[in-house]
Amino acid sequence: MKQSPIIILVRPQLGENIGKCARAMLNFGLADMRIVNPRDGWPNPDAGPSAAGADIVLKQARVFDRLEEAVADIHHIYATTVRKRGVTKDVVTPETAAAEISKTRGKSAILFGAERSGLESSEVDLARKIITVPINPAFGSLNLAQAVIICTYEWSKLQVLESPTSVEIEPPAEQAELDGMIAQLNELLASTGYFFPPERETSTRRTLRNLLTKPGWNRHEIKTLRGVWSALGKLG
Amino acid sequence: MKQSPIIILVRPQLGENIGKCARAMLNFGLADMRIVNPRDGWPNPDAGPSAAGADIVLKQARVFDRLEEAVADIHHIYATTVRKRGVTKDVVTPETAAAEISKTRGKSAILFGAERSGLESSEVDLARKIITVPINPAFGSLNLAQAVIICTYEWSKLQVLESPTSVEIEPPAEQAELDGMIAQLNELLASTGYFFPPERETSTRRTLRNLLTKPGWNRHEIKTLRGVWSALGKLG
Repeated sequence: MKQSPIIILVRPQLGENIGKCARAMLNFGLADMRIVNPRDGWPNPDAGPSAAGADIVLKQARVFDRLEEAVADIHHIYATTVRKRGVTKDVVTPETAAAEISKTRGKSAILFGAERSGLESSEVDLARKIITVPINPAFGSLNLAQAVIICTYEWSKLQVLESPTSVEIEPPAEQAELDGMIAQLNELLASTGYFFPPERETSTRRTLRNLLTKPGWNRHEIKTLRGVWSALGKLG
Repeated sequence: MKQSPIIILVRPQLGENIGKCARAMLNFGLADMRIVNPRDGWPNPDAGPSAAGADIVLKQARVFDRLEEAVADIHHIYATTVRKRGVTKDVVTPETAAAEISKTRGKSAILFGAERSGLESSEVDLARKIITVPINPAFGSLNLAQAVIICTYEWSKLQVLESPTSVEIEPPAEQAELDGMIAQLNELLASTGYFFPPERETSTRRTLRNLLTKPGWNRHEIKTLRGVWSALGKLG
């Protein structure tokens, strides 16, 4: 059973754009929107008119204070970015992402950043892969709703055409499980003085998070790793 | 030599939408716009701001009084419609149209009708084929710029603009490096009594190896992990 991806708008600025995203989503058969820390609060009276009838998406949208909460139950997180970042994550097209999402089990989500600034590095860190819409390198000016349109359009195309073939046996663990495992390791490492000097701590933690997010371990694997950390913790 | 399709806006109403179409076009590498009988005349001061920098498209746009003149030099005309009409023409998806346009010689054009009413039947008559964007049958609310985005996006995909290579920036580490990292962890774990009972040791080691092989970590990541193991080893 295919699960539609969840669209997560992170720190969106304008209600009008949230409405446009809802319209884009419903045009292509998606209805599950989450909103993280919208600048102008929620509900936003500007969202309705630009949704052009897709009010159901806005009404059902779930709002979160923090991205970590919004993705806690997600198995596959994709982050959209305009340009390549200095991160070692797979960069895929909307088409490839749609194909992956269609084939997999578990919940998938696509993160879209704020209109002006996009996703922050720490937000991209939560994702296993990056989606970049291939655009004219001499004129890259894709706005929020346009990016949502392309990604949702690609997903919808496959729902008619594609029959599922190779389905993963076990999806990646939910994000909350991954987070718990990373937190346990970080705590352990902190007790060893690993995060030294202090000014390097943030970037070292990012490196570790990216490295441990990349595998897409399933819940059994995550459990095994927590056992490993626990065993190593006994050394102390 | 591939020729880019020409985007023809027929009787567009709002300058703002003409600007949005220009932006969508340039995002996907198209610059040849024609405008037929724009409601508010031309140039239109509302077009520039919404073009978001794609002014070159607006500046070069050619304006015609009648559609017949605008398509006089075109070899392949496609008409976009939201719903199928009672006409005996091929209806293709934007993807199929893009593939056809990429393969053909001669000039191609895609016609987009007025925001509210779309193309009139007599206008559709000029086209050889109809393009219909596949959307949610229960909620079809695609606006002019969105339709242009989808069609130009599909065309650009075939041109291999800047397809983000899903090629890894850094290949997985050599097996010997991976083995060294696994061996270090195993040694550490053995000292904690992790591999107990002894009859489970082999399968536990296999589980760990599989789990640590799955990510395909590169050499930098492996090195980081060795640092992590070393730090945890100091707990002892």
